[in-house]
Amino acid sequence: MTCHTSGDLQEIVDEVVPLTNDGEVADYIPALAEVNKHDLSVAVYNVRDNTCIYAGDYQKKFTLQSISKVLVLALAIQDRGYGYVFDRVGMEPTGDPFNSISKLETSVPSKPLNPMINAGALAVTNMIKGDSALERWSRIRDFVQRLASDKNVTCDESVAKSEFETSCLNRALCYFMKQHGVIEGNIEELMDIYTKQCAIEMSCFDLARIGAVFALDGKDPETGKEIIPKGIARICKTFMVTCGMYNASGEFAIKVGIPAKSGVSGGILGVVPERCGVGIFGPSLDKRGNSIAGLKLLEILADKNNFSIF
Amino acid sequence: MTCHTSGDLQEIVDEVVPLTNDGEVADYIPALAEVNKHDLSVAVYNVRDNTCIYAGDYQKKFTLQSISKVLVLALAIQDRGYGYVFDRVGMEPTGDPFNSISKLETSVPSKPLNPMINAGALAVTNMIKGDSALERWSRIRDFVQRLASDKNVTCDESVAKSEFETSCLNRALCYFMKQHGVIEGNIEELMDIYTKQCAIEMSCFDLARIGAVFALDGKDPETGKEIIPKGIARICKTFMVTCGMYNASGEFAIKVGIPAKSGVSGGILGVVPERCGVGIFGPSLDKRGNSIAGLKLLEILADKNNFSIF
Amino acid sequence: MTCHTSGDLQEIVDEVVPLTNDGEVADYIPALAEVNKHDLSVAVYNVRDNTCIYAGDYQKKFTLQSISKVLVLALAIQDRGYGYVFDRVGMEPTGDPFNSISKLETSVPSKPLNPMINAGALAVTNMIKGDSALERWSRIRDFVQRLASDKNVTCDESVAKSEFETSCLNRALCYFMKQHGVIEGNIEELMDIYTKQCAIEMSCFDLARIGAVFALDGKDPETGKEIIPKGIARICKTFMVTCGMYNASGEFAIKVGIPAKSGVSGGILGVVPERCGVGIFGPSLDKRGNSIAGLKLLEILADKNNFSIF
Amino acid sequence: MTCHTSGDLQEIVDEVVPLTNDGEVADYIPALAEVNKHDLSVAVYNVRDNTCIYAGDYQKKFTLQSISKVLVLALAIQDRGYGYVFDRVGMEPTGDPFNSISKLETSVPSKPLNPMINAGALAVTNMIKGDSALERWSRIRDFVQRLASDKNVTCDESVAKSEFETSCLNRALCYFMKQHGVIEGNIEELMDIYTKQCAIEMSCFDLARIGAVFALDGKDPETGKEIIPKGIARICKTFMVTCGMYNASGEFAIKVGIPAKSGVSGGILGVVPERCGVGIFGPSLDKRGNSIAGLKLLEILADKNNFSIF
Repeated sequence: MTCHTSGDLQEIVDEVVPLTNDGEVADYIPALAEVNKHDLSVAVYNVRDNTCIYAGDYQKKFTLQSISKVLVLALAIQDRGYGYVFDRVGMEPTGDPFNSISKLETSVPSKPLNPMINAGALAVTNMIKGDSALERWSRIRDFVQRLASDKNVTCDESVAKSEFETSCLNRALCYFMKQHGVIEGNIEELMDIYTKQCAIEMSCFDLARIGAVFALDGKDPETGKEIIPKGIARICKTFMVTCGMYNASGEFAIKVGIPAKSGVSGGILGVVPERCGVGIFGPSLDKRGNSIAGLKLLEILADKNNFSIF
Repeated sequence: MTCHTSGDLQEIVDEVVPLTNDGEVADYIPALAEVNKHDLSVAVYNVRDNTCIYAGDYQKKFTLQSISKVLVLALAIQDRGYGYVFDRVGMEPTGDPFNSISKLETSVPSKPLNPMINAGALAVTNMIKGDSALERWSRIRDFVQRLASDKNVTCDESVAKSEFETSCLNRALCYFMKQHGVIEGNIEELMDIYTKQCAIEMSCFDLARIGAVFALDGKDPETGKEIIPKGIARICKTFMVTCGMYNASGEFAIKVGIPAKSGVSGGILGVVPERCGVGIFGPSLDKRGNSIAGLKLLEILADKNNFSIF
Repeated sequence: MTCHTSGDLQEIVDEVVPLTNDGEVADYIPALAEVNKHDLSVAVYNVRDNTCIYAGDYQKKFTLQSISKVLVLALAIQDRGYGYVFDRVGMEPTGDPFNSISKLETSVPSKPLNPMINAGALAVTNMIKGDSALERWSRIRDFVQRLASDKNVTCDESVAKSEFETSCLNRALCYFMKQHGVIEGNIEELMDIYTKQCAIEMSCFDLARIGAVFALDGKDPETGKEIIPKGIARICKTFMVTCGMYNASGEFAIKVGIPAKSGVSGGILGVVPERCGVGIFGPSLDKRGNSIAGLKLLEILADKNNFSIF
Repeated sequence: MTCHTSGDLQEIVDEVVPLTNDGEVADYIPALAEVNKHDLSVAVYNVRDNTCIYAGDYQKKFTLQSISKVLVLALAIQDRGYGYVFDRVGMEPTGDPFNSISKLETSVPSKPLNPMINAGALAVTNMIKGDSALERWSRIRDFVQRLASDKNVTCDESVAKSEFETSCLNRALCYFMKQHGVIEGNIEELMDIYTKQCAIEMSCFDLARIGAVFALDGKDPETGKEIIPKGIARICKTFMVTCGMYNASGEFAIKVGIPAKSGVSGGILGVVPERCGVGIFGPSLDKRGNSIAGLKLLEILADKNNFSIF
């Protein structure tokens, strides 16, 4: 399937692109610091007629980072079942930063508040089945390929390596959870899989396509085949609403009102139930780690098209 | 308008009423401790045809408690505007208990995370316009009367008094916020208004009727007149989803998936956009302060009728 | 008894007075903000021969502020006994700021960590016996007069009033503790007494004289009569070492090594067991609320005279 | 030198040994869980005449655990200097548990509050000089041998191994501090050295001998040679007073009043300046991790002999 340029979308991009001046690219992961902060691209995949429109460089690739959390969650619930997953990871949003460790210490029992913060996402990745680290990683990659309907999707090894070498904070979270029995096994192996999942690379078009799957409650928009069971797709969309946009999730729900998940690479995955999937790439970030121009773009788009689910 | 009994509803009530054994009525407010913990009533107000069905004692009255937070928020935004309100109170859900003070201290700037926790609700009540405490309280009461379409709705003075005398924790929150400039004026007056708003008394039928207003984005289901501007009604519904059910909001969003607000009196206000309003009263509470049988009742109702917005 | 100037002391004062440029006077209490930040005076009361030396304006008056905490503690233990006091207030130092409320919330049971932080000091003042607020305050004032051997010591009403009107944070602490049963009674009365005790006014000479009493384990240095029982005087000195200098207590113990208590007015009460009492006034404060020049002065004095108890 | 039995000491031991019933041995380190909880031994090394008295099995060996923190601190300050050490580790006592991670997150800059909590001790061990992990460990062991005047003191390899394998929490602390630049280098190597230092094995007699060195401000009680420079010995003693007994340091300062450091093995190192060193072993612990009978024994001993420095 191809994606067509859209004058309407381009107008919005032109309107919001100056905002990229006000943000900064993520610099705590060395490999992320090298992108062009003025990049901005968007694709919208319409599930009603399998058409796609875009503006900006819709083939420009970027890494998923935290967006991967919601995809791996979908796989983990399939692998382990609802009960197993949520015995180990909570369902509640949190006002703390995504990489906070304090709440793990004060919570009784010690379990991550939800699967969208780093601690929860690490625990979820730890649940993926497979006989080896390689097999577990391969199963994640294959699942994302199916969602994006693209056999070439894989991780950017240099970004994965860069994150693997510098992720002391995530290791701290892992060891803390291992102490409390939330996760088990070898931490370096887990970090290897987790940094690879974060480094999965794709374009905003791929992302819009994945959004389309969620918009159809887990069905492939082209074949109609189920990739994610409906109940699990709904759980994922719910987490996207309550805690998908870091510490701006509440504000985003009010201003935009759709399930969405962002990453510090500047990507945003948006879902408009039964209507469309949205993929955005804009690496200039606001202080809470969301694409500064991407947020505004989604807000305008949602307003014009009455996207809000509320 | 009258409300009719429903065999279908009664069946669900019969199914879940044994759960009331597993919970406890709130006892920190002396006046609340005296209710019958096995009470359970529900009303559903259908906005499409202005019909209402119920099961249990649908005229039994109870106080709103935290349910009042979302109603007063609607009035405050009308009084002060979006910018004024959200400069002083945040929009983000929190994993902390509803009466926590710690986060106020660690947040920079010090503002309550959202209007559904006690700190935020006190700050919101502090924004209601009026030349005197009496006028401010009267405006809240009148607004709730309009929502319920019932001129007789008012507060239970003895519950209000009981809470006024024992609310040391809320006073602590008030003084802390006053220190940081989040609220202003006389704290005892504010406590007087706040304890009255919490003590507003109504039945599950009244509550379902209020839910119907929100289901219609703020319009009176009988007259069609706007009681709450659409944008404000949507903000309220969003907060109900992200933080309406205390520390079980995330789980409720996944299991039920509708805007709802609970109170420690055992009331639950539910909203199914464009379809119906739901009012529940079941004073036996789970550990997080939600009606234990009411939650299950809503879950079954939502499942049978495909209520979820996700 | 009179106090004589000392060239040696004056030399140290001259050496450290430039440090007053690097600090700031406390401004959160309006009445404190008006002092001259370059003031610096010191008096040393030798208990071996009842002589006193000074440098700077040794008659300049200032309010005790937090220094009063250790004096009122001595009275409270006499009034209520060791068991009663320490059932309600802990004995442990804390790394949190003196006015923090978070730890009250997370501690189980909820009791202030020690009597030198505001919460603990408020709880201690709440224990002072008396049939009325006036009598309780009078007993505190009389006790301080005995310690200073000066019948004229009393509070500065305007400072007390200024603090009474602005102390929202202390009220928050009080109500929080009242909720948890740590303190009881009328909060406004307690605030009245507490702000008066903080506003007790004296000179560095008076303070040195009080230090002399502690240096003698509670005995009046002139009459030899017991003002504070020995065991209680020792408890007070221990708290001065472990938590007398706000969040710099640990560093002060290492650098100076004597029991001491500071106040945000810039006063420091120092005790060298069996040798002398020290009183300092220097209102220019460092970031942790201690007299910036006073600290250095004490460090030099302690070093020259081998004051450290370690 | 030999140590003689003492009827006076034995009487105190007999008096307090029933308290061992009220405590529990540490079980979070598998190898520690196997000891006899009713063991209780004590040795007192008099520095004035180089005599030693004991009661109980004074040759019974146990591991130092947290007692090692104060010894390694003495070496680290010698290796790196006062400035280097305290740029990276604070001097303030804390009300948080010894293994807490929360305060590291909330402190700005992120540095451990003091060298007696695990985070601080790990950072201090990270400062010990040496070209390899082996050399760094050897230098610690040799230093402890000099303090104990016993060339045979070394670690219990099986305890070290047991701790190395189970110390996820300490690894979490290490990675968290590495993220914030407080520590550097290979974490597994650091854990290897740290678990060995904790597993250094000795008797209460050895411990009393080490206490004697501190009682003499760092001098060997037999040869008079300096093992620790005086200023550094004083710093160590100060930390023992402000934070040597976990979360009971404040209470211990009031009840006993001497520099002391405890370990979860049940050991206590006590120092009475210019008088004696005390070594205690009693593995039955109270809730805060201190030897339950050992504490009482020290309290009685201090009371009878007027040990308190306050």
